[in-house]
This record gives sequence, structure tokens and C-alpha cells, in this order.
Amino acid sequence: MTSSVPASSLDPTLAARLRRSADGLVPAIAQQYDTGEVLMLGWMDDEALHRTLTTGRCTYWSRSRQEYWVKGGTSGHVQHVKSVALDCDADAILVKVDQVGAACHTGDRTCFDADVLPLDQ
Amino acid sequence: MTSSVPASSLDPTLAARLRRSADGLVPAIAQQYDTGEVLMLGWMDDEALHRTLTTGRCTYWSRSRQEYWVKGGTSGHVQHVKSVALDCDADAILVKVDQVGAACHTGDRTCFDADVLPLDQ
Repeated sequence: MTSSVPASSLDPTLAARLRRSADGLVPAIAQQYDTGEVLMLGWMDDEALHRTLTTGRCTYWSRSRQEYWVKGGTSGHVQHVKSVALDCDADAILVKVDQVGAACHTGDRTCFDADVLPLDQ
Repeated sequence: MTSSVPASSLDPTLAARLRRSADGLVPAIAQQYDTGEVLMLGWMDDEALHRTLTTGRCTYWSRSRQEYWVKGGTSGHVQHVKSVALDCDADAILVKVDQVGAACHTGDRTCFDADVLPLDQ
């Protein structure tokens, strides 16, 4: 759960509390603040969390592109940040947002709309 | 995003679609099915997902204890599975559950109740 942490502008007290996966990232859940819909799961490093806390726009680290990614920067489907919370172990982040348009790049409202698995109970 | 995958009873077609982090795990969000509360984030490998789909109880892989963990197995704070969905990239799981009692080991209803971060916008 520890790894080298790249320099960032995140408050050092908060950075000291954050528990990162081996790749230095923390999973971040984006939830629509009023309806409760879980929109997507992204990944944040310290700097992405800092930018999310300070700019009012959700910013993630793209594992596939290896770059910071302001959600909606190209699509316009911005996430306005309403609140940010850590979980009890400081190893997961919940961001309540106001999502403009579709959260999913497929055009679905959420990334979890299209692939419900059959239960076999 | 690929790693060796331990043998499991998960449907092979589903296992072939699943995209795991370097540690072989996929983050799983537990959400209360009726209120929309995000309760916690846990981790599943193929076998934990299989057990979640087939037993009706949320089962995670504990990274700290390195063992399977049926949520509520000791506390009684069981998560009854209502639905399971993958996201658009098949690298995150959303489990809608009916949570008995507190989801958090601290006694809070959710793991995200206690640590709201200040915004500096």
C-alpha cells in the first residue's frame, strides 16, 4: 500500500494520510450529488486530488493515457465538484458532483448502465 | 492491466472480459440499492466476484489480510446482493446491496461519512 509519491501541490497533512495502491493511485467514485447515481470510477494520484479539491472540476489520472484528465475537458461533460470525502482507511475517495450530460464516453448517463451481470443464486 | 489470474469458478466468458489492476483485483463499489448511499469500496478478484454473483452475499478480497471476506460474516452486517454491474471498461464493479446495519467497521452507516475534505475553490 506504499509507493513513491510524486511531488504534488496536495496539502502535506492530507498526503500523509492518503493510502495509495501499489501504482500510487487511489480509486475515486463519482456520484451524482442529488440523485445518488454512481456515475463512474476513476483514479487519482495526489496531484489529481489536489486539482479536484481546488479547481471545482473533477480531475483524474488516466491509466491508459498516463496523463491528467479533466473530466469533460473535451466532451463538455464536466463534473462540478460538490464534496470530496475519504473513506475510513483513506484508501478510497467519494466525489459528489453535478454531472453535465453523460458521464460515460459511450453516451450512457453512467458507466454502469450497460453491463448488468446475471445473478445465479 | 493484465496479470496472472488465479483459478476460480467464475464463468470463463466473464473472466475473459474482466480487466484487473496489476494486483489482479478490481475495485467494487457497494451502494445501498434503495437510498443510493455509497457504502464502501472493496476489492474483488475473479473468485470473489463469482461468490458475490452466486451466493447473494457480497464477498471481497481483503488486501490487508490476504483472504476472502464475506461482508458481515463476523459482524452480522451482511450485504444482500440486489444487482451487479460492470462499467464500460470492465475494470470496475458496482454492487447494489441491501446493507444490514452499519457498512463501516467504525459503526458509521457508510465508510465515507466521517472524513469530508475541505474544498478550496
